[in-house]
Amino acid sequence: MTGEQLFQNIKNKKSFLCIGLDTDIKKIPESLHKYNNPAFEFNKQIIDSTNKYSVAYKPNTAFYESRGLHGWESLELTVSYIKKYYPDIFLIADAKRGDIANSSEMYAKAFFENMEFDAVTVSPYMGKDSVMPFLKYKNKWVIIVALTSNPGAEDFQLFKSGNNKILFETVVQKSKEWGTADNMMFVTGATRASLLVTIRSIIPDHFILVPGVGAQGGSLDEVVKYGKNKKLGLIVNSCRSIIFADNTPGFAETAGSKAKELQLQMQKLLKENHII
Amino acid sequence: MTGEQLFQNIKNKKSFLCIGLDTDIKKIPESLHKYNNPAFEFNKQIIDSTNKYSVAYKPNTAFYESRGLHGWESLELTVSYIKKYYPDIFLIADAKRGDIANSSEMYAKAFFENMEFDAVTVSPYMGKDSVMPFLKYKNKWVIIVALTSNPGAEDFQLFKSGNNKILFETVVQKSKEWGTADNMMFVTGATRASLLVTIRSIIPDHFILVPGVGAQGGSLDEVVKYGKNKKLGLIVNSCRSIIFADNTPGFAETAGSKAKELQLQMQKLLKENHII
Repeated sequence: MTGEQLFQNIKNKKSFLCIGLDTDIKKIPESLHKYNNPAFEFNKQIIDSTNKYSVAYKPNTAFYESRGLHGWESLELTVSYIKKYYPDIFLIADAKRGDIANSSEMYAKAFFENMEFDAVTVSPYMGKDSVMPFLKYKNKWVIIVALTSNPGAEDFQLFKSGNNKILFETVVQKSKEWGTADNMMFVTGATRASLLVTIRSIIPDHFILVPGVGAQGGSLDEVVKYGKNKKLGLIVNSCRSIIFADNTPGFAETAGSKAKELQLQMQKLLKENHII
Repeated sequence: MTGEQLFQNIKNKKSFLCIGLDTDIKKIPESLHKYNNPAFEFNKQIIDSTNKYSVAYKPNTAFYESRGLHGWESLELTVSYIKKYYPDIFLIADAKRGDIANSSEMYAKAFFENMEFDAVTVSPYMGKDSVMPFLKYKNKWVIIVALTSNPGAEDFQLFKSGNNKILFETVVQKSKEWGTADNMMFVTGATRASLLVTIRSIIPDHFILVPGVGAQGGSLDEVVKYGKNKKLGLIVNSCRSIIFADNTPGFAETAGSKAKELQLQMQKLLKENHII
């Protein structure tokens, strides 16, 4: 998917919502365990009831890998389902991979060829050659993990140097040179919304993927206030507060309502900022 | 496996060799493609012919994920095979994972429960809470990616600060506090052997996993010279120069000879350093 297509989808759906599919098998409704692949069935119902309100989905690979072959199959089925029935969805593998070049090539193959993800999150620690293999694919995206929402972000990402630079700034500054605003995005946690200003000043044109709104405590208004550019340039992820809002057989309907609530807030913000 | 057991294995086998199982399906001998799971068959034969000379194996998850379900199955079969027939082998998942706490818990489950790896490599960028879930398992190990052998290591790992600290030093200094010398190791690429002195001064008692000897150009003598401690404290990985030395049907025998060559060099170094 191109950046322009994604922007059009945001305007059409009046939403910049990404829904995290961190499908923890222990949290899905009991009623789904009769299915062959309960995690896939859960995702399918969540997707069917929320896709009107979202432009992206983001399965987190950890939750699938934790269940081995069966889990990996849930992931592959989910990707195929979205690509078949909702081809306008921007599909992100939240994998946080990154290894030396010949290994990263294999990860790129896993997510862009073997599965048809549009984007993959990549950890920047190993530098340029760990990122480049993902950038060889046309209309696919690398999302560099810049500044995360967890407490541990303070251990190294906010590591200060004598010349007033901070590691996450250097990461964004340097890595933006490896690609373009049409094949790279950057992760910035919603709990650090004020630092979005810093990141936005380095990358005025790139999309920023912002997780952490909802269960992790980030504020949507602040994210938009500090992170927007003239075409919005934001995808905001929410997960647990949508997909695990209800664990009765009516879970999908509840997820739909929760997604709609966020979409309506986003619609208001898009209007206020003259994007729609 | 405990550190003491690993040290005993090193003394018994007179080897501190780890063999990387970066099993690229395109590089395995044609003769194996008749098997149900050619990548597993390749690993099995390599393991059978090299295990006398090595104390550890390190499958790189990228090469398995790149082939989807079938690849993940090759990985699971390889882990089961090693655990069943060679239980004294230290088994490392070279996965370079790392995510916020509840996701890292799932990765730990994937590698320590669903598969019986002894250790997993973890990227430090997201800090303490991305590492801690792996440390909850008794006799399992986290191997923190500190300083890698690829060119991209210079982009951020060697990021200098005003107070004469370098990122990889801060990573080692800070992360060693999260565990002990009995559940944490650190990756340092062999191509940066002289910097092993710096890392060894911060962690006198920990094991260091050193990839990059062989195809990537690192020197075994230098790694021992700069990285050893009183119990050696080193596991040295070699991959392509062993497993892909020969792609005829005699590949496993050749791999055995190549592993033996390295083991003999290691035996000499262990003697010179009065460890055996």
